[in-house]
Amino acid sequence: MTGTTVTKTKYVYEFSEGSKEMRNLLGGKGANVAEMTRILGADRVPMGFVITTEACVEYMDGGGKEPDGLDEQVKEALAKLEEGTGKKLGDTDDPLLVSVRSGARDSMPGMMDTVLNLGLNDESVEGLAQRTDNPRFAWDSYRRFVQMFGNVVRGISGAAYEDAIQKAKESKGVELDTELDEADMKELTSTFKHIFAEHTGDEFPQDPGEQLKQAIMAVFDSWNGKRAIEYRRLNRIPDEWGTAVNVQQMVFGNKGDNSGSGVAFTRDERTGEPEPSGDFLTNAQGEDVVSGVRNTRDISELAETMPDVQIQLFEILEKLEKHYKDMQDVEFTVEEGRLYLLQTRNAKRPAQAAVRVAVDMADEGLLTKEEAIASIDADKLDSLLHPTFDPDYKFEVIARGVNASPGAAKGEIVFTADDAIEKAADGVDTILVRPFTEADDVAGFHAAKGILTSEGGKASHAALVARGMGRPCIAGASSLAIDVEGGKMEVGGKTLKEGDLIAIDGTTGEITTEDVPLVDPEINQYFQKVLEWSDEIRRMAVRTNADNPEDSRKAREFGAQGIGLCRTEHMFMEADRLPKMKKMIMAQTVVERRAALDELIELQQEDFEGIFEEMSGLPVTIRLLDPPLHEFLPDRTELEVEITKIRATGEGDEKLELLEKDLRRVRSLEEVNPMLGTRGCRLAVIYPEIYEMQVQAIIQAAAAVKKRKGEAPIVEIMVPLVDYESELELIREIIEEKAASIETEGVEYQIGTMIELPRACLVADRIAEHADFFSFGTNDLTQTALGFSRDDAEANFLTHYLDEKIIDISPFESIDEDGVGMLMEIGVEKTKEGKKPIKLGICGEHGGDPTSIGFCDKIGLDYVSCSPYRVPLARVAAAQATIERGS
Amino acid sequence: MTGTTVTKTKYVYEFSEGSKEMRNLLGGKGANVAEMTRILGADRVPMGFVITTEACVEYMDGGGKEPDGLDEQVKEALAKLEEGTGKKLGDTDDPLLVSVRSGARDSMPGMMDTVLNLGLNDESVEGLAQRTDNPRFAWDSYRRFVQMFGNVVRGISGAAYEDAIQKAKESKGVELDTELDEADMKELTSTFKHIFAEHTGDEFPQDPGEQLKQAIMAVFDSWNGKRAIEYRRLNRIPDEWGTAVNVQQMVFGNKGDNSGSGVAFTRDERTGEPEPSGDFLTNAQGEDVVSGVRNTRDISELAETMPDVQIQLFEILEKLEKHYKDMQDVEFTVEEGRLYLLQTRNAKRPAQAAVRVAVDMADEGLLTKEEAIASIDADKLDSLLHPTFDPDYKFEVIARGVNASPGAAKGEIVFTADDAIEKAADGVDTILVRPFTEADDVAGFHAAKGILTSEGGKASHAALVARGMGRPCIAGASSLAIDVEGGKMEVGGKTLKEGDLIAIDGTTGEITTEDVPLVDPEINQYFQKVLEWSDEIRRMAVRTNADNPEDSRKAREFGAQGIGLCRTEHMFMEADRLPKMKKMIMAQTVVERRAALDELIELQQEDFEGIFEEMSGLPVTIRLLDPPLHEFLPDRTELEVEITKIRATGEGDEKLELLEKDLRRVRSLEEVNPMLGTRGCRLAVIYPEIYEMQVQAIIQAAAAVKKRKGEAPIVEIMVPLVDYESELELIREIIEEKAASIETEGVEYQIGTMIELPRACLVADRIAEHADFFSFGTNDLTQTALGFSRDDAEANFLTHYLDEKIIDISPFESIDEDGVGMLMEIGVEKTKEGKKPIKLGICGEHGGDPTSIGFCDKIGLDYVSCSPYRVPLARVAAAQATIERGS
Repeated sequence: MTGTTVTKTKYVYEFSEGSKEMRNLLGGKGANVAEMTRILGADRVPMGFVITTEACVEYMDGGGKEPDGLDEQVKEALAKLEEGTGKKLGDTDDPLLVSVRSGARDSMPGMMDTVLNLGLNDESVEGLAQRTDNPRFAWDSYRRFVQMFGNVVRGISGAAYEDAIQKAKESKGVELDTELDEADMKELTSTFKHIFAEHTGDEFPQDPGEQLKQAIMAVFDSWNGKRAIEYRRLNRIPDEWGTAVNVQQMVFGNKGDNSGSGVAFTRDERTGEPEPSGDFLTNAQGEDVVSGVRNTRDISELAETMPDVQIQLFEILEKLEKHYKDMQDVEFTVEEGRLYLLQTRNAKRPAQAAVRVAVDMADEGLLTKEEAIASIDADKLDSLLHPTFDPDYKFEVIARGVNASPGAAKGEIVFTADDAIEKAADGVDTILVRPFTEADDVAGFHAAKGILTSEGGKASHAALVARGMGRPCIAGASSLAIDVEGGKMEVGGKTLKEGDLIAIDGTTGEITTEDVPLVDPEINQYFQKVLEWSDEIRRMAVRTNADNPEDSRKAREFGAQGIGLCRTEHMFMEADRLPKMKKMIMAQTVVERRAALDELIELQQEDFEGIFEEMSGLPVTIRLLDPPLHEFLPDRTELEVEITKIRATGEGDEKLELLEKDLRRVRSLEEVNPMLGTRGCRLAVIYPEIYEMQVQAIIQAAAAVKKRKGEAPIVEIMVPLVDYESELELIREIIEEKAASIETEGVEYQIGTMIELPRACLVADRIAEHADFFSFGTNDLTQTALGFSRDDAEANFLTHYLDEKIIDISPFESIDEDGVGMLMEIGVEKTKEGKKPIKLGICGEHGGDPTSIGFCDKIGLDYVSCSPYRVPLARVAAAQATIERGS
Repeated sequence: MTGTTVTKTKYVYEFSEGSKEMRNLLGGKGANVAEMTRILGADRVPMGFVITTEACVEYMDGGGKEPDGLDEQVKEALAKLEEGTGKKLGDTDDPLLVSVRSGARDSMPGMMDTVLNLGLNDESVEGLAQRTDNPRFAWDSYRRFVQMFGNVVRGISGAAYEDAIQKAKESKGVELDTELDEADMKELTSTFKHIFAEHTGDEFPQDPGEQLKQAIMAVFDSWNGKRAIEYRRLNRIPDEWGTAVNVQQMVFGNKGDNSGSGVAFTRDERTGEPEPSGDFLTNAQGEDVVSGVRNTRDISELAETMPDVQIQLFEILEKLEKHYKDMQDVEFTVEEGRLYLLQTRNAKRPAQAAVRVAVDMADEGLLTKEEAIASIDADKLDSLLHPTFDPDYKFEVIARGVNASPGAAKGEIVFTADDAIEKAADGVDTILVRPFTEADDVAGFHAAKGILTSEGGKASHAALVARGMGRPCIAGASSLAIDVEGGKMEVGGKTLKEGDLIAIDGTTGEITTEDVPLVDPEINQYFQKVLEWSDEIRRMAVRTNADNPEDSRKAREFGAQGIGLCRTEHMFMEADRLPKMKKMIMAQTVVERRAALDELIELQQEDFEGIFEEMSGLPVTIRLLDPPLHEFLPDRTELEVEITKIRATGEGDEKLELLEKDLRRVRSLEEVNPMLGTRGCRLAVIYPEIYEMQVQAIIQAAAAVKKRKGEAPIVEIMVPLVDYESELELIREIIEEKAASIETEGVEYQIGTMIELPRACLVADRIAEHADFFSFGTNDLTQTALGFSRDDAEANFLTHYLDEKIIDISPFESIDEDGVGMLMEIGVEKTKEGKKPIKLGICGEHGGDPTSIGFCDKIGLDYVSCSPYRVPLARVAAAQATIERGS
């Protein structure tokens, strides 16, 4: 006979068995309580045990069935707890009471459930009363337990209980809960049990073992509560982690004036200043502090109320911070003068505080520079680089949208780009409000202070362009009903008209009609230090995406080491160029086209000179014309409608011929899928004269700047949308021939290409033979690798994908490492197999996303390029990537 | 001192040094002449030497500079030739004359240049006259040489010479060249030299060495002649191969009636019948036979004229065929009764002959079955499966277009799908003529006998749909000026009106207005044998793409082993479904949508039952709805124009509300890049009820067929456009839940997915965990991997790409192995690394392309699926792939 040995899974750990390294198994809270028990000694931390995340996962996988063996293990741990505390759950004499709290791997504050005072029943409440000689406290605890148990474990709404408390106070003519006495509490407990029975059909459970069991399962269930799921989605926490459950002896902050509860931070949690901060309440349980029902007192006042406790607490805070090498956020309770620590965790902090704490801790010698840099959430730094609403000003939020481009702005509402331009000319600040935006609206982006749309999201046209320009933008504020023609919008029952004041915060997504003061950003000494250290550490260079001198200057101020992507199409969209561009496109012959290009070349050269002056001495990558030509022409449907109108009414007859000519050309250029159509280098294969003009403008501009400033930029000419090596070979010839025909004043240039199509990644080695550099265009690469049209995906299905958890984050926000990332890796590997070394960069939106920057570092890119306002963030993220790889 | 040893490249090979294995170096002709010299002995093959293709490549790379050392090597070889023949080039007594011919690796008949009689000059012509005792012959040879040299080497047009000959004949009052005597020839030679001097400014070169050198370079240059380039493009011959040059002693078929020239095939070159065929002329040079100037005589008549020669020739033919194990095409010359073989090569043959020859040779034991199958050009078999123009009927071609879908058809011209449908109802055959076609026109494809468009190409909508339906189609016939509204078109100065007769041959791209008789195809006994043998040999299964019972039946007749792709969208396009489909799309709520779907389900089930009955017992892969919903709605611009018209005129006011409602929905569904938008499984994530309806219809249909016929098909449900494993996981659940709720009568089904996005290839292992089969959708995979919108690429830039030689063949015609193919390979490898075996197939257009079929076999797919009419071809190609892999 053969047999298998069944290893029983250990689902339950006593605090003394754990440590902070066991976070994945015990959850953050459990691991930290265990760690605290070790550092501070058992005296400072109430005893208890943890039920592992594994048990939760098992429970979920089993569809809500308690894992085999869990029950016995809980019973064993409980027995030990009873032994250690010398008390028994449900004891009629001196009952043990416990808290039951969730605790996931990463903290999810307020997202999951807690049950306090568990162990009380009709008998043990008497024991507690006797033992503490405080019957009011005992009955208060019991009624709280009945309330919380009903709410958390059986889903009874809190309102039912609050009503009963309100009635009790009214009938007694008092205002505060504390004015209710023992009898009132007894009465309330009875009422609460009645509510329980009424809502659930069950009597309130008297068996403490049963109470514990139900509470544990309720915590497990809370992992899949609506709030928790939403929180995980926003914070990219995997669903399959599950939560641990912490069962801990209760200590009581509500045993009179020498008791209390509080939360404390080892440093100021808003500013990062190196002084403890926090709040406390005397004669209260921790929930009272957090809930905000009573006005809390500042931790500094603890010195007046309980001076010894304050000294002990501050010593412990210092000890914890040194131990964890990170700012801590603790919960404490004082029971009759004795200080207990219930929880510690790394403190969440806003960017400003994070930066200050990192620098201070490094200066204090607590952290190395690397550790200090690694401690900062780079994503949040963005908020430090834009104007914000005055944080002290309270205002009413009338609607919310997607925080699509950070920063706050306010101004008069305008509904069209033209109005924005007109008002800007009069010096009036505006916010451009549109259902969605298109290429035509771009001039309005320049003119307006901010952009607000009711459709789209972070990857919409509005968001992309706004981020590129550093304009605040809220997208997809779906509660706005915008009537562009009527010049008004409805929101929450109000009507706002053109010219009304509106203020938006693109960092938070909040919209208001109040005149909230704006606070300007500045890179303070601490942030400056963080950036300096990052520059010392990082391997990758950081460049910017910039199309004009202002952005270039701004980016250079922010530390950009050159331009990684200068798009040339926006230049043609400007009011003085568009007619000339149109003429070029309408040309019937090469001769006509060259003539039209001749009119554009001076303007192009001016554009480049402006940018080159700002970037002299640094590399500037200029992408030759990329978009399909019909983008520069009027919309086909609009043309057809106008023509139909003229034909039907006879009015405007004189325009007809011209409109029809336009329409014919638009029709001939129109494409079913412009994203996959005649654009990028494909244009140059058909119309080489366009690139020739651009090359001439670039080289001449560089020569002029060199003459004027003594130093030209390092010119890099970039060919978009290459699939085949033969494309680049052909276009390289065109460029070199043109360049050879110009006075270059010794200006040198390189020729490279975007790698932005899957095929280009797969044959990168061959393309590399004709290139001096590559820049991964991950926007287009994402569109093609996934078959997602950026415009359509955001508008139509990506939200469903996020809701259905098909994906955790939009692939346009952070590189899809499995697909797009794998193509990039193949591309990099193939390139490195090639004959010569090639400079490798990235210039998609992802170049400003910290996670993606980490990925770029890992696969060995030489630089990232991002919008000017994300350059500082990218410098830090690049340093973090170097640090992470090094460890 | 160190030195390097320079190995001199051998550029010149004597015939006796070569063999047929040296084809790449010596070219096809050179290698075969060398081989013949070995087999038949030096007596039967005039002596000579070959200048290698390498020399040509060197010459081209050097921009037209003669490779170092070539000159000396030619001189050496010439010296040996003179020694061997005992004659000298330019000898005034008994001059050696040579031919100089091109000869690429693959035969390119008529594409490159030849110079004959080289070595003649004002002196040696007298020697030749004396030696042959035939002054007329000598002068005729000389004037031919002057003419050919001027034409080939210096580019003088043939017309100038022809005019002079014509004048000579007129002044003498004769009709035939042969009636001109020695004096006339002398006179003509003088005139020709005059023409030479006039056109080139140079005297005609008298130095035979110089003549030879110039002729060799001219042959090199002819490789890059316009005709040659075009031929290579059409035949996929790489530009970098270059051509060899054959220099061979001239023998003369024009030395009187016991001389002659001819071409012969070892078997009948049109039918493949096992008898030699060919043509000859007495007293003529080879050029006279080929040029068609004189009426040739059938090879069978040789027995009368030169019986000995006939016996010798037929013996040689048999010997050559046995040696080469392939049908041979030879050129021969008889000089004063002595037979010389000048050239042999594998004979090109039409599909019909290829099939017959293959079967006969296998039956004769000359080839194994495998060799016989391998000898067939699978691509050409297509022509055997469609009606063709009667090959004996001569007609005038009024225009040509791209041969987009094979087969011939004729009928009345109609310009709209509606007209085609109307006339079909009256039993009138029509050809649908459109500038281009769209989804709306598909019903017209069914009704018409053929499709003709003035825009697009092989990858256009018209071509794809026509090939799918097996309808003949010519696309991109750009000389047609079609006026749909006027009901007419202009072509070559003629006006054709609706109702006029037109006939098209989609195999050749020819268009005529004559009533050419059509010949129906049949699979004859030889083709049947080829197919049987192919089925014995091949590893991959062959399925068909079919959406209706007729196609399914046809495909099964042609040997399809099931359906690899049944699209469901065409079903919804039919006149009785479209309004119901529209209702579904216009639904505002899930409840409304389900109600609309309930009206569609019966029709869907009927569709499936019809197909399943034809395919009972075989696998049928049904793809769930794929296209974006707006494809089923009216065009947005048309709606806007109609609304504008109504608003402007007030006419049709009652329709306004409905049109506006349609417009709103169209606008909300419209996408910038529909190809990358809300389609495929993305639809099912948003509207799961659509797939639920389809699944129910599929399962119920299979159950009904099982009940009726005793056997259901093997149902395979295919989910399109999967990117993430989580998509398939979700949709698999939807399918399984729905299926579980239906009476299935024991019908089993599998669930699989298209692999048609780059990301899907890269994570195929993970997707495989939720799939029973994969089908590579190489149409969409090509679009995304290359960023080529099929519709736009063909219409706008692919022709430029082919012209500029950026690509050799459209990636929509044959799989782009470096890009798309590599993704497929990654996909297959990843899948095979996965946990379970998965059936792998392909259902893109490429499934019917022999080269692509070979690739699919190589990477290990289990089946290919193609349109019904390509099934026989695919069976043969699959067998060839197996054979090639095995060798």
